[in-house]
Amino acid sequence: MSLKHIRVIDLTRVVSGPFCTALLADFGADVIKVEPPGQGDPLREQGARVGAMSSYFANYNRNKRAIAIDLYSEEGKTILTRLIEGADVIVENFRPDVMSRMGFSPEQLKAINPEIIHCNINGFGVTGPYVDRPAFDFVVQAMSGFMHCNGGVDDPPMRSGVPLADLICGLYAALGILARLAGRTGQDTGGSMNVSMLSSLMSMLSFHATDYLNTGVTPTRSGNDHSLVAPYGLFATADGQIALAPSNDAFVARLLKALDLEELARDPRFASNTARMAHRPEINALIDARTSRQTTAHWIELLNNAGVPCGPVYGIGEAFADPQVRSQDVAVETQADGLAVRILGSPVKFEDAPFEIRRPPPRIGQHTSEILEEAGFSSVEIAAFRDARVI
Amino acid sequence: MSLKHIRVIDLTRVVSGPFCTALLADFGADVIKVEPPGQGDPLREQGARVGAMSSYFANYNRNKRAIAIDLYSEEGKTILTRLIEGADVIVENFRPDVMSRMGFSPEQLKAINPEIIHCNINGFGVTGPYVDRPAFDFVVQAMSGFMHCNGGVDDPPMRSGVPLADLICGLYAALGILARLAGRTGQDTGGSMNVSMLSSLMSMLSFHATDYLNTGVTPTRSGNDHSLVAPYGLFATADGQIALAPSNDAFVARLLKALDLEELARDPRFASNTARMAHRPEINALIDARTSRQTTAHWIELLNNAGVPCGPVYGIGEAFADPQVRSQDVAVETQADGLAVRILGSPVKFEDAPFEIRRPPPRIGQHTSEILEEAGFSSVEIAAFRDARVI
Repeated sequence: MSLKHIRVIDLTRVVSGPFCTALLADFGADVIKVEPPGQGDPLREQGARVGAMSSYFANYNRNKRAIAIDLYSEEGKTILTRLIEGADVIVENFRPDVMSRMGFSPEQLKAINPEIIHCNINGFGVTGPYVDRPAFDFVVQAMSGFMHCNGGVDDPPMRSGVPLADLICGLYAALGILARLAGRTGQDTGGSMNVSMLSSLMSMLSFHATDYLNTGVTPTRSGNDHSLVAPYGLFATADGQIALAPSNDAFVARLLKALDLEELARDPRFASNTARMAHRPEINALIDARTSRQTTAHWIELLNNAGVPCGPVYGIGEAFADPQVRSQDVAVETQADGLAVRILGSPVKFEDAPFEIRRPPPRIGQHTSEILEEAGFSSVEIAAFRDARVI
Repeated sequence: MSLKHIRVIDLTRVVSGPFCTALLADFGADVIKVEPPGQGDPLREQGARVGAMSSYFANYNRNKRAIAIDLYSEEGKTILTRLIEGADVIVENFRPDVMSRMGFSPEQLKAINPEIIHCNINGFGVTGPYVDRPAFDFVVQAMSGFMHCNGGVDDPPMRSGVPLADLICGLYAALGILARLAGRTGQDTGGSMNVSMLSSLMSMLSFHATDYLNTGVTPTRSGNDHSLVAPYGLFATADGQIALAPSNDAFVARLLKALDLEELARDPRFASNTARMAHRPEINALIDARTSRQTTAHWIELLNNAGVPCGPVYGIGEAFADPQVRSQDVAVETQADGLAVRILGSPVKFEDAPFEIRRPPPRIGQHTSEILEEAGFSSVEIAAFRDARVI
């Protein structure tokens, strides 16, 4: 299986859009990244570098080809029109009116290529009062109610340290594009779609949303504790902490037995989940006192053997060093100017089609001539574009 | 466009798997949810109820049909085999050996239907040392390094209050299934895939991962502050807080002008982002002193008009009441036993195919007879299954 028959024109920049098209590229699609000549995606300037290459940029632009086009020039518009004629998908994360002002409204795209699938990624959607507001990940984390779910009951609302609104929006955009491709029947025409950061992040609110929507009561933050189950959370060990997640009575019984605390199961304060929730500080303190006596590694080994869901609380470096993580190719390697750049692999593991990096992250306009030739422009035309500085 | 020609056999339970198949069902696929007779998905017992229906369950099981089958019985295996023969996709989130012990290993699935796409969703993957460990969202948040990215520099690592490992894994599983469907060419045979919670959540580590992987230095937590940009974060207002996200010098200039603090732009302590990062407490305090004088609503209006990315910090109820959120159908309504149940819509907005709830969340086995008839079982056979209590 491969999407190598699918061509994607990628006008996106920064995180949400490039992540969407990287997901398609990882599945084999021919993704053509369009950047302004000499200027390029702002993400090229962010994050740790390897030589001249941003590793942050490399992560979201592997497996793509790159063309440089000045889309404000007439010749640039001619080139983009030709690319759209030969493509299956076009993705952009401009504000709502930008594509129309350039002459590529949804209707104009359809006139150029009736089968094109057009995906717009933005902050708030293409209708509604905030359609023209600038949106950034942090603002969306705040407005979505997502921050309200994170942190302790006495803490302020806390964002996630990773740009989740961008990333989840990119995932949903790739999902919508693939649904549209999988739904093509031959009689189908193309169509436009929008995926917004705000709607995407709110779709992750899970029981916080369904509880609120059906009771009118906003669930409280509960830090690292489970809001419905006890004991559950982080516990002290001799050299750090351990995450314990015994989600039902059977798991709690296994945990108490493994900790040699079986007598607690007979204590009426801890005999049911309801009782344990009412006495969470007491049972947590008793478990803490026991787990503190041994190292994290000791408890991880012993509790997993007893079938209790648990794990260490890893820093980023510890996570990547873990043998299970290493076995899953979570980190992979690509190249830039002969130097190794380490980036993230794919969590989707096809038994018969292992993830591969077919192409390293491109330089600005690295494949301009090749792509223009494929699109049928002559060498004379390409030279003229170059002279006019539109590529 | 619609996936109505795609049939999905859904053996999953709780969150990650049912979310994956709900995404497919929302795009039109015929998803058949398989549950044990009388017992059902444990999520039916969780979260706020409307009548007898869990709203949490409803959210992840709308648009599906349901069949009850005892998969431990021989007749149950006969029924599942027949369903697999007529399906495009089978999804399950059992531990690695369960399907094989039931007689439905990847090889056996392929023998029943060479074109079937099989997706296994689990905690850690199908290879590696932890393949047999039980996994729960909280443990994966801890082990992935994700918790390490959240919270202030002096705070402990903090999970997200929503089950992100489950949800992102479900999104990736749906993505892999759709990629496989979009890549079918007619000559294709089916194939197996695995998507794990651990790999899925680690793929969200973004610049925390790429910075670490290419420098060996783990980025520090920075609470609600941006790790590279200042000012950026939550600021006090007369009646609460406001999220400000001026991500570059141009936005900062607009912010200072709008706050009537233009003189700060000429102060050498705040003349560049590097300078502002070195003097973050000072500039934050000066902005706080100004924003504290007016209400959040005042600043939201004024700063958005000035083109400064900003927003309120909403609780869940405030988020759903916001006019932009309401315009995007983030919350939608379904029915259970004649009562309205409010759940989450889809962030993927097709211009020509609005999201719809075609089916309310099913009762256990609600469509058993209908599905067995479609699969070619006679009414005598169905009656015999019922007598034997295998459906």
